[in-house]
Amino acid sequence: MKPILVFQTDFTYKEGAVSSMYGVVKTVDRSVEIIDGTHEIPRYDTWSASYRLFQTMKFWPEGTIFVSVVDPGVGTGRKASVARTNDGYYVVTPDNGTLTHLKDSVGIAEIREIDETVNRLRGKNTEGVGIFHGRDLFAYCAAKLASGIIDFEGVGPAYPVEDIVEHEIQMPRIEAGVVKGVFEIDDPNFGNVWTNMPLALFTEAGFVYGDYLWVTVKNNGEAVFNQEVLFQYSFGFASKGEPIIYNNELMKIGLAVNQGSFSEKYKIGTGKAWTVEFRKGEASLC
Amino acid sequence: MKPILVFQTDFTYKEGAVSSMYGVVKTVDRSVEIIDGTHEIPRYDTWSASYRLFQTMKFWPEGTIFVSVVDPGVGTGRKASVARTNDGYYVVTPDNGTLTHLKDSVGIAEIREIDETVNRLRGKNTEGVGIFHGRDLFAYCAAKLASGIIDFEGVGPAYPVEDIVEHEIQMPRIEAGVVKGVFEIDDPNFGNVWTNMPLALFTEAGFVYGDYLWVTVKNNGEAVFNQEVLFQYSFGFASKGEPIIYNNELMKIGLAVNQGSFSEKYKIGTGKAWTVEFRKGEASLC
Amino acid sequence: MKPILVFQTDFTYKEGAVSSMYGVVKTVDRSVEIIDGTHEIPRYDTWSASYRLFQTMKFWPEGTIFVSVVDPGVGTGRKASVARTNDGYYVVTPDNGTLTHLKDSVGIAEIREIDETVNRLRGKNTEGVGIFHGRDLFAYCAAKLASGIIDFEGVGPAYPVEDIVEHEIQMPRIEAGVVKGVFEIDDPNFGNVWTNMPLALFTEAGFVYGDYLWVTVKNNGEAVFNQEVLFQYSFGFASKGEPIIYNNELMKIGLAVNQGSFSEKYKIGTGKAWTVEFRKGEASLC
Repeated sequence: MKPILVFQTDFTYKEGAVSSMYGVVKTVDRSVEIIDGTHEIPRYDTWSASYRLFQTMKFWPEGTIFVSVVDPGVGTGRKASVARTNDGYYVVTPDNGTLTHLKDSVGIAEIREIDETVNRLRGKNTEGVGIFHGRDLFAYCAAKLASGIIDFEGVGPAYPVEDIVEHEIQMPRIEAGVVKGVFEIDDPNFGNVWTNMPLALFTEAGFVYGDYLWVTVKNNGEAVFNQEVLFQYSFGFASKGEPIIYNNELMKIGLAVNQGSFSEKYKIGTGKAWTVEFRKGEASLC
Repeated sequence: MKPILVFQTDFTYKEGAVSSMYGVVKTVDRSVEIIDGTHEIPRYDTWSASYRLFQTMKFWPEGTIFVSVVDPGVGTGRKASVARTNDGYYVVTPDNGTLTHLKDSVGIAEIREIDETVNRLRGKNTEGVGIFHGRDLFAYCAAKLASGIIDFEGVGPAYPVEDIVEHEIQMPRIEAGVVKGVFEIDDPNFGNVWTNMPLALFTEAGFVYGDYLWVTVKNNGEAVFNQEVLFQYSFGFASKGEPIIYNNELMKIGLAVNQGSFSEKYKIGTGKAWTVEFRKGEASLC
Repeated sequence: MKPILVFQTDFTYKEGAVSSMYGVVKTVDRSVEIIDGTHEIPRYDTWSASYRLFQTMKFWPEGTIFVSVVDPGVGTGRKASVARTNDGYYVVTPDNGTLTHLKDSVGIAEIREIDETVNRLRGKNTEGVGIFHGRDLFAYCAAKLASGIIDFEGVGPAYPVEDIVEHEIQMPRIEAGVVKGVFEIDDPNFGNVWTNMPLALFTEAGFVYGDYLWVTVKNNGEAVFNQEVLFQYSFGFASKGEPIIYNNELMKIGLAVNQGSFSEKYKIGTGKAWTVEFRKGEASLC
């Protein structure tokens, strides 16, 4: 069975870009299955693109081909590439930081630059177009790969995995019983913010469900949230509208408001400027 | 042919939750077909989830499996269930009011609680996750059911249909020629508001297309809209920007503005606090 | 293999309309493949519907059936039709201007009015519904056509292609070295605005990548943007936040801001009231 193509972009469905890409795939091979990952990555946000691949990939069948087009550098010098991960997935993407989290977690086994002389759409009045590689290069090349028209070697020349463009990843740590890290991403729909701390670090620090932890969030060093919050298994352990510390779907620590938005209620953002610390609260120390 | 999985959630496509769920399905069985019902149910709104099932289900092939994940109580005591309707569809859902309208209309034939010991995703670093049953429980169990890996009995133990959690449904009525009811839901895109009154009640009251009806909308008993409005077959019978009473897609009475938004223009909401009455207008009585 | 159904509407996914339509298709024939074109056409905007068909169609396999439901006149006298284009695609649509750009570009070979007596959904309590032809007429008829239950003649009676309802299309021109036209549409997500000028007209005017062109945008004759802008191959040739003139995905001239929104930054709209002129800038004339 041919691998599925899972697409993620920052295009939205507000105009015809997604439809054009999918048409290109189906013109290459009607039998290739296309599924929306998401088309609502924040515009130009290659960090989010990278994180969403990391968040979702392992839940798909091995061999699945992800097409990620968040591409502020389209038509300039950045490489158009296909990566193969150590756990057997493929990512068709501009090499612009989108592979950061996969490289850091499962690892990239091999990466190849797409050879435009063979793997770019021809005809249909597209030959002078420099701004839509999602359609003319990434979708087209991914469809050929999924279809079996080319194999991974057929994508184009390999280049060193060490050359992959990466964003800087912040590492969490424990210092004197305090767990320190950053909010590395959010769930923009529910307003939950996700730290870079695995649940294991909380366990190491001796924090257990039912504890009240003292939480300090700083934005560029200035405290913007400073209070005791319950650490529990799910949102519903807090009263409606109250904050909660929880273990998120990736086994990392998050902050939420039960049936509300933590990021809106407390005006909390994400990125390395947004640091967060947890220590045992007084109630839990008693 | 295996039944289709139709998903509806309040997750949106803003991050990777939908993609993760769909990946789980495809990992269970590549050949199961997935279609988006909608991922834009208002957050935590189990009433809307219930209504959208009622609105759409009968248009799908018998045997279709709906996966509805609007789940404010995830990780707490609410049951995770699969219902079988009297007309032969399945709904995989938290038992939290989402089955209200189906139970009230076509009826629920049988309901079973998902046995987490056999029908929950294992591995992939998900075992301590308490907040994403859409991925780890509902999508996974639904995929097994669609695939035929389990049958309905294999979901888990049955429990009494009478125990299903239900929202209160308001009933419309006629009193002295006046049809009285509530706005039970809206079409948030076009700004139409939908009453709980079947067209048949208008017919019983003697209202016919072409009539001008006097409409009184109250919010918590206070009148917020009070004017004569044309009752007609479709929006275009009103001038652009003018209100109209019409028979909606479910054969119930709605209020709209032709090429505009009734709810925005007149600041009208939905729910049992929003009552509406129709009586013959003076023009129609002449 | 049966043709794909590509849907575009102004329904959004905020409620159950799309799901109901897709259910109707799958009830007619489980094996018909459905793909979202977009459900985010601006409400009632038949110009945009027309443009998005033009923008995307040729990238799909020949024979693909597009279902376009932007239908402010539903339930009134406008025709419900199926058109066959000269290049072998089908469009199921209200005849309300949605075919403008296809007729003007590839041309319409034949058009037929849907015979409601045979090609309208029956049962399911829909028989008195006058407001949802997307479900009861367009999706149902398109599914029968895709399935092979009817052929094109089976849609209903043909009528003259000359009778197709069309919007007025503005033509660009060169006058004394100045290229003049309008912004005919935008990319609402990225805030790019697209002129009606083919790249060929720029070439004819002697404009080449690297030129700085003097751009004058007027709204109803009043200048609202008046400055020199770089004309280049892609966005990244401008500094972040700076405007750029580029060749868009349809080989027409567009205006963008690199990693920003041209339409927001400069408050530029689209339509025939929004004229734009390009002439060689002083820097390029030196």
